[in-house]
Amino acid sequence: MAAHTQRPSGMNVHRYLPFHEQLEVSLPDRTWPDRVAESAPQWCAVDLRDGNQALIDPMGAERKLRMFRLLVEMGYKEIEVGFPAASQTDFDFVRLLIDEDLIPSDVSIQVLTQAREHLIERTFEAIVGAPRAIVHLYNSTSALQRRVVFDQDEDGIVDIAVSGARLVKKYGEQLTDTDLVYEYSPESYTGTELEFARRICDAVVEEFDASPQRRMILNLPATVEMASPNVYADSVEWMHRSLAHRDSVVLSLHPHNDRGTAVAAAELGYLAGADRIEGCLFGNGERTGNVDLVTLGMNLFSQGVDPEIDFSDMDRIKRTVEHCNQLAVPERSPWGGDLVFTAFSGSHQDAIKKGLEALEADAAAAGRRVEDGVWQVPYLPIDPKDIGRNYEAVIRVNSQSGKGGVAYLLRTEHHLELPRRAQIEFSKVIQSLADGQGGEVSGDQLWQVFADEYLPAEDADGTWGRYHVGTVQSETTADGAYAMSVELSSDGVTATRHARGNGPIDAFLAVLEEDGVDVRVLDYSEHALSEGGSAMAAAYVEAAVGDRVLWGVGLDHNTTSASLKAVVSAVNRALRDG
Amino acid sequence: MAAHTQRPSGMNVHRYLPFHEQLEVSLPDRTWPDRVAESAPQWCAVDLRDGNQALIDPMGAERKLRMFRLLVEMGYKEIEVGFPAASQTDFDFVRLLIDEDLIPSDVSIQVLTQAREHLIERTFEAIVGAPRAIVHLYNSTSALQRRVVFDQDEDGIVDIAVSGARLVKKYGEQLTDTDLVYEYSPESYTGTELEFARRICDAVVEEFDASPQRRMILNLPATVEMASPNVYADSVEWMHRSLAHRDSVVLSLHPHNDRGTAVAAAELGYLAGADRIEGCLFGNGERTGNVDLVTLGMNLFSQGVDPEIDFSDMDRIKRTVEHCNQLAVPERSPWGGDLVFTAFSGSHQDAIKKGLEALEADAAAAGRRVEDGVWQVPYLPIDPKDIGRNYEAVIRVNSQSGKGGVAYLLRTEHHLELPRRAQIEFSKVIQSLADGQGGEVSGDQLWQVFADEYLPAEDADGTWGRYHVGTVQSETTADGAYAMSVELSSDGVTATRHARGNGPIDAFLAVLEEDGVDVRVLDYSEHALSEGGSAMAAAYVEAAVGDRVLWGVGLDHNTTSASLKAVVSAVNRALRDG
Repeated sequence: MAAHTQRPSGMNVHRYLPFHEQLEVSLPDRTWPDRVAESAPQWCAVDLRDGNQALIDPMGAERKLRMFRLLVEMGYKEIEVGFPAASQTDFDFVRLLIDEDLIPSDVSIQVLTQAREHLIERTFEAIVGAPRAIVHLYNSTSALQRRVVFDQDEDGIVDIAVSGARLVKKYGEQLTDTDLVYEYSPESYTGTELEFARRICDAVVEEFDASPQRRMILNLPATVEMASPNVYADSVEWMHRSLAHRDSVVLSLHPHNDRGTAVAAAELGYLAGADRIEGCLFGNGERTGNVDLVTLGMNLFSQGVDPEIDFSDMDRIKRTVEHCNQLAVPERSPWGGDLVFTAFSGSHQDAIKKGLEALEADAAAAGRRVEDGVWQVPYLPIDPKDIGRNYEAVIRVNSQSGKGGVAYLLRTEHHLELPRRAQIEFSKVIQSLADGQGGEVSGDQLWQVFADEYLPAEDADGTWGRYHVGTVQSETTADGAYAMSVELSSDGVTATRHARGNGPIDAFLAVLEEDGVDVRVLDYSEHALSEGGSAMAAAYVEAAVGDRVLWGVGLDHNTTSASLKAVVSAVNRALRDG
Repeated sequence: MAAHTQRPSGMNVHRYLPFHEQLEVSLPDRTWPDRVAESAPQWCAVDLRDGNQALIDPMGAERKLRMFRLLVEMGYKEIEVGFPAASQTDFDFVRLLIDEDLIPSDVSIQVLTQAREHLIERTFEAIVGAPRAIVHLYNSTSALQRRVVFDQDEDGIVDIAVSGARLVKKYGEQLTDTDLVYEYSPESYTGTELEFARRICDAVVEEFDASPQRRMILNLPATVEMASPNVYADSVEWMHRSLAHRDSVVLSLHPHNDRGTAVAAAELGYLAGADRIEGCLFGNGERTGNVDLVTLGMNLFSQGVDPEIDFSDMDRIKRTVEHCNQLAVPERSPWGGDLVFTAFSGSHQDAIKKGLEALEADAAAAGRRVEDGVWQVPYLPIDPKDIGRNYEAVIRVNSQSGKGGVAYLLRTEHHLELPRRAQIEFSKVIQSLADGQGGEVSGDQLWQVFADEYLPAEDADGTWGRYHVGTVQSETTADGAYAMSVELSSDGVTATRHARGNGPIDAFLAVLEEDGVDVRVLDYSEHALSEGGSAMAAAYVEAAVGDRVLWGVGLDHNTTSASLKAVVSAVNRALRDG
């Protein structure tokens, strides 16, 4: 054997203590490693609170409502909707949900509050009239935060929690028309000594007077993930076995993903005795994110356990989450990423093909449909169709490929970087074609369809549409005034048209307006197709033409002409279809 | 307690079997949950093979070499560089590394091969002359693949492996100038019955004649991640305890991330007795990716264990990986993502501030530097400075903020979407300012610096630079010919200049060329700042001016003028500095 030649890195390792030198978690007789999950936990989606607070561009009311509706449609019954006492936006959103009667009767909204009276009072103002609500009280309990943030001893920290619980109970008793549940989180639980965590949890449970008939939620946040997931599981099992009133408690987990093991922590913690898991779709949340509810749910599904959440239209879920969070779901995000059902390797593609054939042969031999048997195909842990997707070899584009494959081919073969919404639009065109003809769409065919749809036909007065751009003359002065003459064919009649504006697009819209064509440009981008000033430019315009919103594409050596052509492309497409 | 109201999802759960009904992994006396990692495993980076084969746009020689050099600089000593018998590009790259003497003497290159003689022969041709090499033989062993892909019984599959080992050994014995190590992977190990996995591994070890003095690598791939990470750990411990020749073997792991638990699987598998881990930087690889070597290494670092890999310039690592893979590292990717040290919540920011103050106070009281004590700050598991980053409240921009914060402020406050390389360029300008003045750079100050650097000064003939664009007149014909007249001030003298070209940029470069200014445009993009044809456009040009490459920015209502202004911006910046 060649000697192991790794060398010390020189990094500042001495600054960090292993977890077991910071806190003791010891459970040699743990039982969780012998268990398997046989049913779904109680889920709580915290996208609108923990997720939202970690966004570069936090959600406004429109995006919040879309996220709330998505979560409801998927089947989440507990949804943390905000921190209403800390944010007017959150307060208003909670009121909107209640006042507009947007909360189904079996859905509980959950609101977070710190343990201070004016915040608690405001929190209860937010939820008056809700059919079901969970009021979620927290304070930070870790050794580090007690010392550097709160400057309190253990008694002081317990007092914050218990006093908070007393106030929550007081306001809660006045809220008679709401099915109310209490939740307490010892925040920074993973940095808290287990004995102290138990003490504060027991004290809060007693203050709330929780009982087996009226359980409360105890939530154990890995506010920062500090150790490997087996350690979290040990600590959860320790709490599960040690709590004084376990039967009065719904034990909940709230893992963050600092070490990249939040999914494992949630899964092992669930085996260790927890009942409930809080997380976010696609793992949004502070820093590295909350645990990913999509992965957790789909992991159960792939083991034949009903997640009690509907993931059957994964692409729609993903699009909505991306819209709401304004963050892309990574290509390799489990179950939902663009590439997770793509096999690039020839041997993988071959094995998948053979596996699919064997499934069909087995089904035929047994006289049943493939869908009624057990799924077993190499490299594909589930049938992508079960979540509305398909097996995608990236070199193939078919009716199920979606924008990923389409965008890939346009980029690699034609150097076009379609804006995201344009990708979605064009992939629908391709999809309807593929649905019609069946089977694959080749790269050549894809380009032909793209050209037919967006670019001038060779016979300019033929299929292309009403307008065709000819010679453009323009004058721009340093103060921004712009005058344009454009030779424009309209229904085969060419005339030189004059207009003024702030720039070419603006002036050109004025020309079209003279013809009674109502166009507004909503978005615009342009890029070079290759290096050099003489390169081709591609322009993309998203336009509202009448009441339709659609894209146009223009290609030209001249960036101005490319943008005018893109406008014409959108207009011609709208008029053609109309 | 409100009733648990979750309902069945209606998804096709019946198609999937739980893992324990497919394969038995039973180890009630497991010991791994009581262990902690105290030293780094032997790492093997497979970015250039498993990672590369899963890319939309696989690496060419330039990107391969950059990845190889990065891995070497970071300290990886075993690097899988390709599958040379399956790919001419891989073959040529391996030859390039050897023939150009690019492999340090303590680094082993690793090459993958299937168990067929012509492939093995070709593999050895590829590595002739390498100082150290690992020849990595694999065949697929899972029950599913045996049946549907290979149509072979267990004996047949063992024969493929053993025959392959015999041939590898035969060719290996002829390779006398290379320090050679053998590796075997029972591919699809996680779908293989443990008894059969042991049988085939033992047979291969015996065929290779491995011994404690001349160990071989046995690699256990989670080709598809099929169960929770504790099950993988149990299976690894079972193999560790059951292999006939454990002392002749370096036991290696190769987890994929289908269930989002590859990091946990690697960590728990390492505790279970493995010696070595194969993975990719930032978790690139087939489908959901290979296990992320950055997360694994940094997780050790954060526990005070030297990863023996240098992560001290994380941003550079990330940039290089993004360049090589042409895939973005997600914002929340542990340790390296743009957002993982960003605290958005006010209470988090406050706790971090107090934590940092306490560190300083403790250090002062003890008469030592902060860096010499133990790091303990709420919400920040490590000091970001240890990996070349800083704590970033997103609303703050200081000398360490990097492009993320700068880009954020320009986007949210000024609607500018700087191209990535332009972000990097401008963040250096900001950084040098912040280094000079110390402390934070406000949003207003940031904009002032941006305007000073890229946009015309109010006094156009003052600090801005040599050129200033005035009136532009142009004529474009439908066949693409373009003629331009531009009123151009050069050192305060204004003249009307004429040129022709394919478009405005091309023609304008001709004008500058007449002045002896050597400019080539390398990249160009443009976008609208807001809705409507009368909106402002922002143009960005990356230009080579003489031997410098730099960016220019132009803002104008007119898209053409914006692009010319962007060219002038780059040129003026180059001339100013030169």
